[in-house]
Amino acid sequence: MAHSFDPGYVAEPYLTLCAQYPEDTVYPPSQFRLEWGPIFHRGRLDGSARVLVIGQDPAQHETVIRRILVGEAGRRVQGLLAKLGINRSYVLINAFLYSVYGSVKAKTRRDPNLVGYRHRWMNALLVGSQVEAVIALGQAADEAWRRWRETPAAQGVDVAYAAVTHPTQPEGSSKGDRVKLAAATKKMLENWNAALQALSPGLQHPDTQAPLVLYGDSWSEGDRTAIPEFDFPAGLPAWMHEQDGWARRLGPDDLAKRRNITLTVPKGVVK
Amino acid sequence: MAHSFDPGYVAEPYLTLCAQYPEDTVYPPSQFRLEWGPIFHRGRLDGSARVLVIGQDPAQHETVIRRILVGEAGRRVQGLLAKLGINRSYVLINAFLYSVYGSVKAKTRRDPNLVGYRHRWMNALLVGSQVEAVIALGQAADEAWRRWRETPAAQGVDVAYAAVTHPTQPEGSSKGDRVKLAAATKKMLENWNAALQALSPGLQHPDTQAPLVLYGDSWSEGDRTAIPEFDFPAGLPAWMHEQDGWARRLGPDDLAKRRNITLTVPKGVVK
Repeated sequence: MAHSFDPGYVAEPYLTLCAQYPEDTVYPPSQFRLEWGPIFHRGRLDGSARVLVIGQDPAQHETVIRRILVGEAGRRVQGLLAKLGINRSYVLINAFLYSVYGSVKAKTRRDPNLVGYRHRWMNALLVGSQVEAVIALGQAADEAWRRWRETPAAQGVDVAYAAVTHPTQPEGSSKGDRVKLAAATKKMLENWNAALQALSPGLQHPDTQAPLVLYGDSWSEGDRTAIPEFDFPAGLPAWMHEQDGWARRLGPDDLAKRRNITLTVPKGVVK
Repeated sequence: MAHSFDPGYVAEPYLTLCAQYPEDTVYPPSQFRLEWGPIFHRGRLDGSARVLVIGQDPAQHETVIRRILVGEAGRRVQGLLAKLGINRSYVLINAFLYSVYGSVKAKTRRDPNLVGYRHRWMNALLVGSQVEAVIALGQAADEAWRRWRETPAAQGVDVAYAAVTHPTQPEGSSKGDRVKLAAATKKMLENWNAALQALSPGLQHPDTQAPLVLYGDSWSEGDRTAIPEFDFPAGLPAWMHEQDGWARRLGPDDLAKRRNITLTVPKGVVK
């Protein structure tokens, strides 16, 4: 059986962007988990992307896989892209290179070095590219978009844009309350439906042509889609892209948790 | 600060080799940790390698980094290569793609599919290449070399060869006994000195020219060398290549241990 994989950072400007990234003078270690290194992207860097997704920051599964949005949030985004007919021609970057620890101060968010580096990625992916639509997940991503939109380089770029609720906002806001979770999920899916209707007409070159099927009031079969093997580095086992929950931050206190990622092969994989 | 990195599998035949690798019909899950996926190599795949090192099988640090020989054994090999004047022009592969669990049966070792796939790597790295010397670490690697040497493709290849004691054999054989460890280390370093003397004259194009300095009876300053950042995938934090011990297999029983890798950021990294 052949296993496709993502070759990663093989050409400019990505070779340079992945060699020269902002560190602790730009991303304060009190606000970001610098200790695990930057995580740059997921998806196509070969110019074939039609949709750019801007996320927020990587978490523990992303730290191990070294690609962003590979967990539950990623599967929801994958489903959103699928509804637009996009199952390969996408690229995803984050507003922040490192996992947020606590919250991000306004001064950090505005740091010209943080913003400027992100703009180099956005220029590479948007200026003179085939991208037809941009989706921002959550507030930090929307802010990233708006800052870039004001730059001279952005002025000639004509793409559809939608800022949507972050895919795991319902879980984050409901804190285990099932009634709140259902309400927040319904609200998010309404928000995503509006984005689908706004973006769909602007997408001239989807990977597959099909009528737009909106979300219902809750998740339905097929709304969350497996992240394809071709987005992952070579040789990773199937369970790493078929599910999440296999990477946790464990420890008796905050520092111990911060220093830990515990990987557990899902049940049934080892017989 | 710029961080160099290894772009990985970007050209043929490595794109195909990393997409089509033997799985459980070739590597029995009772003898190998298939659950963590195959790990292919470390070092130069761009034709610049002058020395090929054949190792044995990857362990837990290698599983996370997705490159081989990145822990203590790797640093010892790095030091051995440095004594030959090789600090960049090397490539390392393993006899086995997966971590050995227990021991490997003779029938598995001889499986034409296991051997044949390895030969495809060896052909790619040795036939018509610039490689001038091959070093095998331990018995499985020596066996891998000897099997390949008998193939038609190998007949036109003229390289120096040395089979050496595996770099962590002293720890493995002494099981915590310091006297035995010192004796086994001394014996290994004698064995490595013999290899250095055998290989050194055949190496026409080292990265640096310097007189051969042999090992003493025990490890000296500089004998173990950090694995360079340019061997690692993009974005990995410095502590992952400066030391090992940060990845452990923990659990209350064998199955739990087999399913676990626990990552711990070294002390002092998070302040």
